[in-house]
Amino acid sequence: MKKDKVKPRLLKGFRDYSPTEQLAREKMLGKIRKVFESMGFLPLQTPSLEFAETLLGSHYHKDSLKELFGFKGPDDVDMALRYEFTLSLARYVASHPDLALPFRRYQYGNVWRVDKPGPGRFREFMQCDIDIVGTKNLLADAEIIAAMVTTFQQLGIDNFVVRYSNRKILNGLIEYAKIDTEKAPDVMRVIDKLEKQGREAVIKEFGEGRVDKSGDKIKGLNLQPEQISKVEEFLDLATNKSRDPLATVEELLGNMEPSQIGIDELRRIQTYLQAMHIPENKIAVDLTVVRGLGYYTGPVFETTLLDLPDYGSVFSGGRYDNLVDRFLGRSIPAVGTSIGIDRLLAALIELKKIELEYATSKVLVTVMDQNRVSDYLHILQNLRNAGIPSEIYSGDTKNLTKQIKYADKAKIPFAVIVGSDEFERGMVSVKNLSVGRERALKTSDRKEWLKADEIQVTIPDKDLISYLKKHLTNKEKKDE
Amino acid sequence: MKKDKVKPRLLKGFRDYSPTEQLAREKMLGKIRKVFESMGFLPLQTPSLEFAETLLGSHYHKDSLKELFGFKGPDDVDMALRYEFTLSLARYVASHPDLALPFRRYQYGNVWRVDKPGPGRFREFMQCDIDIVGTKNLLADAEIIAAMVTTFQQLGIDNFVVRYSNRKILNGLIEYAKIDTEKAPDVMRVIDKLEKQGREAVIKEFGEGRVDKSGDKIKGLNLQPEQISKVEEFLDLATNKSRDPLATVEELLGNMEPSQIGIDELRRIQTYLQAMHIPENKIAVDLTVVRGLGYYTGPVFETTLLDLPDYGSVFSGGRYDNLVDRFLGRSIPAVGTSIGIDRLLAALIELKKIELEYATSKVLVTVMDQNRVSDYLHILQNLRNAGIPSEIYSGDTKNLTKQIKYADKAKIPFAVIVGSDEFERGMVSVKNLSVGRERALKTSDRKEWLKADEIQVTIPDKDLISYLKKHLTNKEKKDE
Repeated sequence: MKKDKVKPRLLKGFRDYSPTEQLAREKMLGKIRKVFESMGFLPLQTPSLEFAETLLGSHYHKDSLKELFGFKGPDDVDMALRYEFTLSLARYVASHPDLALPFRRYQYGNVWRVDKPGPGRFREFMQCDIDIVGTKNLLADAEIIAAMVTTFQQLGIDNFVVRYSNRKILNGLIEYAKIDTEKAPDVMRVIDKLEKQGREAVIKEFGEGRVDKSGDKIKGLNLQPEQISKVEEFLDLATNKSRDPLATVEELLGNMEPSQIGIDELRRIQTYLQAMHIPENKIAVDLTVVRGLGYYTGPVFETTLLDLPDYGSVFSGGRYDNLVDRFLGRSIPAVGTSIGIDRLLAALIELKKIELEYATSKVLVTVMDQNRVSDYLHILQNLRNAGIPSEIYSGDTKNLTKQIKYADKAKIPFAVIVGSDEFERGMVSVKNLSVGRERALKTSDRKEWLKADEIQVTIPDKDLISYLKKHLTNKEKKDE
Repeated sequence: MKKDKVKPRLLKGFRDYSPTEQLAREKMLGKIRKVFESMGFLPLQTPSLEFAETLLGSHYHKDSLKELFGFKGPDDVDMALRYEFTLSLARYVASHPDLALPFRRYQYGNVWRVDKPGPGRFREFMQCDIDIVGTKNLLADAEIIAAMVTTFQQLGIDNFVVRYSNRKILNGLIEYAKIDTEKAPDVMRVIDKLEKQGREAVIKEFGEGRVDKSGDKIKGLNLQPEQISKVEEFLDLATNKSRDPLATVEELLGNMEPSQIGIDELRRIQTYLQAMHIPENKIAVDLTVVRGLGYYTGPVFETTLLDLPDYGSVFSGGRYDNLVDRFLGRSIPAVGTSIGIDRLLAALIELKKIELEYATSKVLVTVMDQNRVSDYLHILQNLRNAGIPSEIYSGDTKNLTKQIKYADKAKIPFAVIVGSDEFERGMVSVKNLSVGRERALKTSDRKEWLKADEIQVTIPDKDLISYLKKHLTNKEKKDE
């Protein structure tokens, strides 16, 4: 047997979620889903595996399967685990011509990416997306921003800002700086690095390139000096927070048609957000927002947690009017945004905006007298019928101390103890283990807190439920 | 563009869950999770991908990777999508020696199997498991059965029975019939076919084998006639529902030590279930219950929906005391059960025990006058603040009839309509689309129901929320 043992290990970049993490994740996800459903978004689930061409386009190179979790599956078909939801959404919309449009949908679930794993970087992680498909109406963009703000508010995060801009303004900049439109995606990709890499690095990338910290050479775009200085004009005003960004950029790029359209769109969105009573300090036009993804065509959004700037944007998206093209050969306009669930949860925990729970049981019914198991089960059933999550000690030891130790280790707050003497007198003992734990942290005098009467009480069995309900409510009140 | 189009299609054996299906699935899953948490089970999540050896054992043949969704992934590692949760649970327990035992955990999520797809048979489907790990105590087995019964009750299913037996009784039968213990797993596998294939087929499989409907030859176990007749004695009494199965089997196999232990264990479980007030008609010892899986060592359970016998067992499991061996080289006893979520949901829908929902929005705020979008957003915000899930029409048409058509298609029950005239008078119109839909089904006279005053009312805007709340509550009351 021993030589055949399998090492109990996880694949690199994969993780378990302990019950405590999972309880917190479910609680957070429940709140997020409630926000989305209250705004009319509908849940959709698509498969984890898709045809490779759904994810990579019709002319993918076989090697790019390796950049995803892709493989030749049953029936000799190239397939891959999804790395995001938007392509599957586009596939769904393309194959459901009868769908009521605009289609407000949300989807949560795992996505898989063959990135290099690192601290906080996993190869399987959970995302939650909302999108409104089938409309160019900017009310949809405003609704997406409103959903982002409301989500943070409902999660108890106060100090955040949803920053947004418009790709169209940048399209005008490309015209203004007389840059070849083929280079536009690269220019945007470089501007997107501004916040992270700083201005000097970005300017170098516009020119001849630069060497990064690790010594790697990063190729430059080789723009002309006149072109770079025009982009710099834009960067100057984009990073100048003292003036109204839209008025400023209008002075520079108002003559460029795409920019003027982009500016007008953002103004309209501002008006809508105001009418929706979205607090002004939670939203800001920020011309440095670009988003890396190639498929955005209009407004783009991201979010900063002001107390945790290192977390980057935990919630970002934009308008993409051409994505369904891949399947239909005609455009279906759409706008959406995506939350990194695991990163947001890490932020909530760090900000202490979520109470960590360790046990679902509030009460452990101990089994002191093996001949009275049925009586203990009777108590258990009464507790459960009264809506108190409970369990009976179902392990192998008959030793009461060890049973209590289990409750303590599992962080179950109360233990019910009834010996034969108590059964005869119609009494039960209740031990408050959470008070015990709290005191143990505060006092070194173990005897002292063991004596304290709140730790263990003996009460008539008919009062058990009301006693527990009272003390559980107190605890929950404290938790709020 | 056209020649590069990707066909919007699903992989064979994979499916989307439409919003209606997904809303129902979430609602059902929420109820199930609540039952499990009220009994002290804790949620765990493990990765979708595991090392191949975690799922297949240390000496797996490369070809068996193809029997799972297995492949050589990044870093040249053999990995596969999980086909169940129990092995991942065993891995988790093996690598967390500090875990409080018994560990009550539940896990829900997708599993993947390279089975031949067919109606209702998918290659990706959702399971939800509960297990109690780290105890031989039969209270754990009783808790698992109680969880099964409570789950069905909470889902509103009345007509079901959890049937259970004990592998140990069958171990005694193997001794009694003097069958080589190496053949025991095969004998159990064949007995497991009794319900589906019938007695004659099973007897043939014990002997020389048989030819199935499709003409395929099924190999027999080549038992001796004396051995077969002893197994038949057991089948006779196992299928005789007129007597107490435990008393009957004790007469036949009471002298066989494993059988007697198995019988005593089931009696103990019966006592526990009685003390937990589990209704007697919801549980039954049934000696034909075997379960196909090789790793069961004690009590085994399955469930029949009496109104839908064709669904087979939607919730089944058993005790497996050796599974963690693979990782630790020592035993950790455990017992658990697994629900096929998608099959159970199909059953709930067929039994009409779940209300299908199509929209999350209760109200569509239409945009009649493009100059007053802010006023419509104001109405929207007030509805949302009052807790009424709502959306504003965010599509591209300005035509009111088309906007109403959207609400109708999306099955949003109410539409709010305000023209400039109504704005001036401080009035709003509310159209009840669900009443309209119901009548449309009942009457062929379209004019008649269009006229009816419940279909559309005009009320002071200050009364909008109370009007909607009243009518939404009525609707919800009707739904119950």
